[in-house]
Amino acid sequence: MVKIAIIGAGSVSFSMKLLQDLNYYKDLSGSTVVFMDINEERLELVYTLAEKYMKETGARLNLEKTTDRKKAIDGADFVINVVKIGGYHNMEKEREIAESLGYYRGFGDRVSDYYGGFAAYEQLKFIRELAKDVEKLAPNAWYMQVSNPVFEGTNLALRETGLKVVGFCHGYLELFHLIRVLGLDPKDVEEQVAGFNHSIFLTKFKYKGENAYPLIDKWIEEEAPKLWNSYEYMISPWEYTQLSPASVEMYRLYGLFPIGDTPRAVSPWWFHTDLNEKKKWYPAGGPDSEIGWTMYLYGLKLRLAQMERLARDPNVSIVKELPVEESMESIIPFVDAIVNNHRRRLVLNVPNQGAIPGIPDDVIVEIPVYVDKNGIERERIEKIPSRLMLYVLIPRWLRMERILQAFQEGDRTSLLLMVMDDPRTKSFEQGKNLVETILSQPWNEEMNKHYK
Amino acid sequence: MVKIAIIGAGSVSFSMKLLQDLNYYKDLSGSTVVFMDINEERLELVYTLAEKYMKETGARLNLEKTTDRKKAIDGADFVINVVKIGGYHNMEKEREIAESLGYYRGFGDRVSDYYGGFAAYEQLKFIRELAKDVEKLAPNAWYMQVSNPVFEGTNLALRETGLKVVGFCHGYLELFHLIRVLGLDPKDVEEQVAGFNHSIFLTKFKYKGENAYPLIDKWIEEEAPKLWNSYEYMISPWEYTQLSPASVEMYRLYGLFPIGDTPRAVSPWWFHTDLNEKKKWYPAGGPDSEIGWTMYLYGLKLRLAQMERLARDPNVSIVKELPVEESMESIIPFVDAIVNNHRRRLVLNVPNQGAIPGIPDDVIVEIPVYVDKNGIERERIEKIPSRLMLYVLIPRWLRMERILQAFQEGDRTSLLLMVMDDPRTKSFEQGKNLVETILSQPWNEEMNKHYK
Repeated sequence: MVKIAIIGAGSVSFSMKLLQDLNYYKDLSGSTVVFMDINEERLELVYTLAEKYMKETGARLNLEKTTDRKKAIDGADFVINVVKIGGYHNMEKEREIAESLGYYRGFGDRVSDYYGGFAAYEQLKFIRELAKDVEKLAPNAWYMQVSNPVFEGTNLALRETGLKVVGFCHGYLELFHLIRVLGLDPKDVEEQVAGFNHSIFLTKFKYKGENAYPLIDKWIEEEAPKLWNSYEYMISPWEYTQLSPASVEMYRLYGLFPIGDTPRAVSPWWFHTDLNEKKKWYPAGGPDSEIGWTMYLYGLKLRLAQMERLARDPNVSIVKELPVEESMESIIPFVDAIVNNHRRRLVLNVPNQGAIPGIPDDVIVEIPVYVDKNGIERERIEKIPSRLMLYVLIPRWLRMERILQAFQEGDRTSLLLMVMDDPRTKSFEQGKNLVETILSQPWNEEMNKHYK
Repeated sequence: MVKIAIIGAGSVSFSMKLLQDLNYYKDLSGSTVVFMDINEERLELVYTLAEKYMKETGARLNLEKTTDRKKAIDGADFVINVVKIGGYHNMEKEREIAESLGYYRGFGDRVSDYYGGFAAYEQLKFIRELAKDVEKLAPNAWYMQVSNPVFEGTNLALRETGLKVVGFCHGYLELFHLIRVLGLDPKDVEEQVAGFNHSIFLTKFKYKGENAYPLIDKWIEEEAPKLWNSYEYMISPWEYTQLSPASVEMYRLYGLFPIGDTPRAVSPWWFHTDLNEKKKWYPAGGPDSEIGWTMYLYGLKLRLAQMERLARDPNVSIVKELPVEESMESIIPFVDAIVNNHRRRLVLNVPNQGAIPGIPDDVIVEIPVYVDKNGIERERIEKIPSRLMLYVLIPRWLRMERILQAFQEGDRTSLLLMVMDDPRTKSFEQGKNLVETILSQPWNEEMNKHYK
């Protein structure tokens, strides 16, 4: 059986999802799962939970735990990277600094985590180190990137190693939210999304063999305004991003409906100039506003508290508290498809290899693929409208290239030029001030040296 | 002998340059030169001047004139397009409109002519029509684009016809201004420029076999500040662009020295926020400021008046008034190289075909090539620094693709998205207002219909 290493397993609730899926895909029984984290407390927590879960369910998996990355990787068949270096504290401090310099919600303000050239540094550095370790200790393993930035991270791992690199994101599942709202039976829907991680669009949408885009148009006309004015919508900054005015306007501007985190990540700058403007496009403020993001950070704490309670209290059953069905994450289904030759369609981040014309072959794209023991076969991707290519996908590709170039060449001027490209930058002095102020923070000492 | 058609020959002083060169390259004697223009008055003027010039010099050329484009093209070996549709009047009116809406110096404000999505329309429409006529009437002719926008125009002609397309610009000759100021003998200089038209950089610069960039560094350190403070510099908004603080700062930011119109066309936005800011980078205001551009428009009138006097006054000798040496334009040397197999190195705009890695093969680049009866052979281009690719060349390539896509698909939303990408656009309403106001001008009726 196979060895699966979860790097950053202290992301407790995510690791528990993987464990549930491993239990659900029975043909993976007997596999070895190594939980690895440098945070011993969290590692203990997830291991305790996992043991309890195994006892409750009778799942047959060999569980291991270690703080030694190399030990976890050694001989692994699948290495899953869910690491987020340093948590959110410094990022929130940097956001405050950037706000004081004229950047509302900070510099990496869409999909509020790793999009800026700054905060990406720690993540990219770790991804590079991990991928190089995997290349040495388990050169035939699949390197599986789950934590952000998936787009930049998978491309970096691909460029710096000879590994089989795949990126995972559940964002596209929001498509089924749309399908549900339209009242369609998913079984009769033929769909395809394509683009980059957090920048995917609905390239095919058929219902019972017919083009179903008119059903979206009808929903926009007749139903959407009601939803946007509902109480339920107004108290849910996260829940309805897929169905937001932002998504509808992007569909109008670029010609295809954006899916998942896309209306957050690559929505145009004028949606985001201040909270009032944001509310026009995301009536409850949206996930990346001071409202939505505060809720997210609070939610992380709630989830951790729940996990601690589940681990501590012998009277509480995990199976009863956590849903037993599969999580909908593609990670374990991917492993199962490879290991057990259970061919299935998954939306994954894989090298383009011609799937999207106009994007280089070696750039990672997010598209539907068929996975089995022979690996990955790309679905034929529908033609993407030229306006969408020219105003969304190529600029996003260029941004990835800039972030990687700045990182790989340690190029401080490139960081500055990236900041100068932000529509909120009004002068060279302002841009320079942002770069220098962020880099001179005590926690960024190493990054400050890296960017010459 | 060959037939050369000059379309837009009413650009009198330019046509006279070509005539001088035709006289200089003696092996082209006996060629037929057709002056074509729809402006009969200008056509008469240039024809009168040309006959007078032939008489004075004894040049042996068969001169023809016509207002019929198809007649000029029919059976031509070389079709030279120097047409500027409609002169500058409407462009200046549109600049006023854009200024009133918050766009200092208007929307297409760098290389103050055809860079905006708007003003390009008439030019691109004409280029398409002309190139299609050439394809029909002289399918083996070389289609030679001289008038702007050379970058967009050559790419359009290449994509819409099967013609051999070449673009011409004398901008790169400014390199010899730099060489002269450095006190170097051009004979001992090995140089190479590469990029796109109006976006070229000094990719190789050697003096007597040694890297000569340190000589530029020394000049920047010791001599440039003196020049920038000189009276001569301060009264010459055009003359010294090559040696401006703009060029020096772009060299610092992107790693290679910009040549010719490059410090105008792709200088960063923060050089251009207002006249005071411009003066930091172009101490006399620069060619595209209200100062330099006013001088340019006035200069056009002066030159026309000079030409009219030369034609009118039988006592004035053309040969005495106009320099007799070759003009340094590459157009006739190109014709001579092809026709007479006089192999020579020229800097031309030709399909990339791998010359610059990272740019598609079929995109037109400006690079040194060797020309003879077999056609064009590309010089091997030195590696271009990644920062220059990511912050100048790829964005400029993307802008060309956007301008062509908007034009070819008649895509009004694309025009708007281009405007929204301008750092001066502060809101969607402002951008939309600019597009709609420009398109609703009476002279833009046809363009207004074209962009749906």
